[in-house]
Amino acid sequence: MSNYDQLTAHYQTISHFNHAQSMLGWDAAANMPAGGNDARSKAMAELSVHVHRLSTQPQLGEWFDKAQQELLSTEQQSSLREMKRQWQQATIVPEDLVQAQSIAGSKCEHAWRSQRPANDWEGFEKNWKEVVKLSREEAKIRSEALGSTPYDAMLDKFEPGTTTASLDTLFSDVKTWLPELIEKALDKQNSQSIIMPSGTFSTANQKALGVETMKLLKFDFDHGRLDQSVHPFCGGVPSDVRITTRYDEKDFVQALMGIVHETGHARYEQGLPKAFAGLPVGEARSMGVHESQSLFFEMQIGRSKPFISHLSQLSANAFNAHQDPVFAEENLYKIYTQVEKGFIRVDADELTYPAHVIMRYEIERDLINGVIEHTDVPALWDEKMKASLGLSTKGNYQNGCMQDIHWTDGAFGYFPSYTLGAMYAAQYKATMQQTVDIDGAIKSGDLSPIFKWLSDNIWSQASLHTTDDLIKRATGETLNAAHFRKHLETRYL
Amino acid sequence: MSNYDQLTAHYQTISHFNHAQSMLGWDAAANMPAGGNDARSKAMAELSVHVHRLSTQPQLGEWFDKAQQELLSTEQQSSLREMKRQWQQATIVPEDLVQAQSIAGSKCEHAWRSQRPANDWEGFEKNWKEVVKLSREEAKIRSEALGSTPYDAMLDKFEPGTTTASLDTLFSDVKTWLPELIEKALDKQNSQSIIMPSGTFSTANQKALGVETMKLLKFDFDHGRLDQSVHPFCGGVPSDVRITTRYDEKDFVQALMGIVHETGHARYEQGLPKAFAGLPVGEARSMGVHESQSLFFEMQIGRSKPFISHLSQLSANAFNAHQDPVFAEENLYKIYTQVEKGFIRVDADELTYPAHVIMRYEIERDLINGVIEHTDVPALWDEKMKASLGLSTKGNYQNGCMQDIHWTDGAFGYFPSYTLGAMYAAQYKATMQQTVDIDGAIKSGDLSPIFKWLSDNIWSQASLHTTDDLIKRATGETLNAAHFRKHLETRYL
Ligand SMILES: [Zn+2]
Ligand SMILES: [Zn+2]
Repeated sequence: MSNYDQLTAHYQTISHFNHAQSMLGWDAAANMPAGGNDARSKAMAELSVHVHRLSTQPQLGEWFDKAQQELLSTEQQSSLREMKRQWQQATIVPEDLVQAQSIAGSKCEHAWRSQRPANDWEGFEKNWKEVVKLSREEAKIRSEALGSTPYDAMLDKFEPGTTTASLDTLFSDVKTWLPELIEKALDKQNSQSIIMPSGTFSTANQKALGVETMKLLKFDFDHGRLDQSVHPFCGGVPSDVRITTRYDEKDFVQALMGIVHETGHARYEQGLPKAFAGLPVGEARSMGVHESQSLFFEMQIGRSKPFISHLSQLSANAFNAHQDPVFAEENLYKIYTQVEKGFIRVDADELTYPAHVIMRYEIERDLINGVIEHTDVPALWDEKMKASLGLSTKGNYQNGCMQDIHWTDGAFGYFPSYTLGAMYAAQYKATMQQTVDIDGAIKSGDLSPIFKWLSDNIWSQASLHTTDDLIKRATGETLNAAHFRKHLETRYL
Repeated sequence: MSNYDQLTAHYQTISHFNHAQSMLGWDAAANMPAGGNDARSKAMAELSVHVHRLSTQPQLGEWFDKAQQELLSTEQQSSLREMKRQWQQATIVPEDLVQAQSIAGSKCEHAWRSQRPANDWEGFEKNWKEVVKLSREEAKIRSEALGSTPYDAMLDKFEPGTTTASLDTLFSDVKTWLPELIEKALDKQNSQSIIMPSGTFSTANQKALGVETMKLLKFDFDHGRLDQSVHPFCGGVPSDVRITTRYDEKDFVQALMGIVHETGHARYEQGLPKAFAGLPVGEARSMGVHESQSLFFEMQIGRSKPFISHLSQLSANAFNAHQDPVFAEENLYKIYTQVEKGFIRVDADELTYPAHVIMRYEIERDLINGVIEHTDVPALWDEKMKASLGLSTKGNYQNGCMQDIHWTDGAFGYFPSYTLGAMYAAQYKATMQQTVDIDGAIKSGDLSPIFKWLSDNIWSQASLHTTDDLIKRATGETLNAAHFRKHLETRYL
């Protein structure tokens, strides 16, 4: 067996344990009764340890060295590159640091669950200090290995190839036009009247509506399911993708669009190439590219007028309320494109969302690079919220810098993915519409030309190319914020 | 760390992978879309290989030898005995034989799924021949290691300590009185009129009824769930027991009693001692003892008059049919104690069931011991069915020797467990009623005195004692078929 084949077999073995891990995680969120938590956590921890052991097995280094001398096809070279990338990610940080981070992160996150509602910054700060310190150690080790700045090394975990330099350029561009665009959109919407949903929307009816919507989006129910969990997510494995949502019986709007979003994640997974199943090269390219699929579904398809026309029909059917003006196309469109300045990122609309991300990026970048200290964060948060959305968070930690889970366990470098995803999605649309009648396809109810473009250009490409190459091959250029701006201006002005 | 402690840690590690395996198996039956099967099978096979590797790790032999010299408490000695037993079970059969059996068994079972409906004995025989041959090889190897007959060695897998000698005694006793008892019961029932359920019983209502019944039986929903699958079973792990059932919208009777049965299995699992969680000594004693719990719930509680009075109430509520005579106590009792001679074991009633088991026992015993050949089975089946239930299966293989899945993949030695379980259950009842007002407890709707007895005597004892000791400690004697006879006579005469 060649060293390349040996590596391939090894990573497929790892994927089988990851399959178990992924399904146990989904089950814990979607099915497991509370009393099952203790044994489940132990089982999942054991699987993690085992996967880590397999991922850092001593002979891998030699196999990689030798495989690089073997005659490989272009695809095999990509496969080798991605296996090696995962191996480096697994081995780069010493195990005692990983363990210390896991303990500090769990402690901080656990306490945060009660500290946030209590607005207890002082309590939080005591735990978070350690998380930040350990993340900086991690960033230092990674940056030395990669020859990059500490924050770039953290970005590399989620968005390989993306750098502070490129993000600074992209985001500073956005900052030049976003605030004014938000103001104009708000002005325009001031004169609008919206009828908000009220009354009871049963979980059963909402679920049926979700399933109909997923069918319109060609979710493959032979390779996946829709279930419920407190925090919606897309889990499972490519051949069996488990998406979840949360229903609010007082309002169907959020859950419905949440399902559209998760369906975007799911179709990416379902569309990954079978030929590379179980191998790193067969996985989704990055967090940002993943989000580009969910946001293409949510923002480019889901909130478009022709799609909302379908949602109007489907939801009026589901709730048997054809005369109710809530479900009128125009009204639903207003609901789904309403702009509002708010404190909370996860509640933010499409237009204000980037502002939330960019300020987090600026703060975590400087925090990891040692330019600021963790105790500076609340004041910076207040300052940046005032500058971008005109809201003060002074003393309001729970709706300020304590609102997200990401930083509690050290996921620094993740936030940019959200806005990168929205930008990629707008750029795909700009290219796609040169060859595909997007609105026409949505109107007709047969969206396959859209999905064919996504499949050809993104899904089937998995991790065969770097992100930059992937985007260039798909759209003829690397990421260009102009498309995002144009999309937002078209929709909101 | 002592060798005993090392072994304990090792078996706990194994239990974490078994946790994953168990949950993936449940998910495959209860949730997984068909398209997920391929990746799931690979993941489960990988976990099996890994568990087998851990279970046969070379240093275990030395640890066991040394641990036996260490100062251990009585409970630790039991724990060591059960770890060693699992180790021996895992190592006794050479891996190439295990693999050959797995391949032959899968092939035979897969083909059987279409051969059975086609009544294709000739096709089946060709595959089954190999399964029997390999099972005989396994039995030979096991018997040499244990110093027993080949069939006793197979029994030992499912019912450690149970021998052909004891089963011959028990079953030949049953054969002296069962046929006449069946005839008398049939005579008595001839004059009865039963109103059978008809109409639609929605899955949702049946599930709600099942949940109410499980609550009456004190199933702990904080440590388990009820779901649906084609073949009902009890899966999961002790802290999170997953039971399943199958609903027929034309009839609620079977699913309801099926839930009672699985709840018995579930409460045994839920009641296993936390102190030994993850260790072999903390597991259920044997298949027969497991079945003694499900059958205690189904036969001793579930089909008793006071319990059926509850079911009458609960089902009339669930289907909102208080006037319907189907749900009248008397009528439900008749339904649940109806005796009928039939071809199919899984459809058999409490009274004819042992006849089905005993003839399978006699055939598989002689087959494994080399007294008969696999080609003799159809004729023997016909002969024994005629003798015990007066039914001929000549040429009717699909409702004869091809009806069960057990033999298709070589699970010889399993069948006796069903009737052992029924006998144990009757014996518990005989002892329990000396100190517990069983009918009174059921009538009152608070069954805890019954569950306390089961918990004290069976659940909390897990595998601390041998089966014989467990039964003796619980009832003052080893298994005695007289209690079973008495129970049946009381109910059916
Ligand atoms: Zn997303
Ligand atoms: Zn059972």
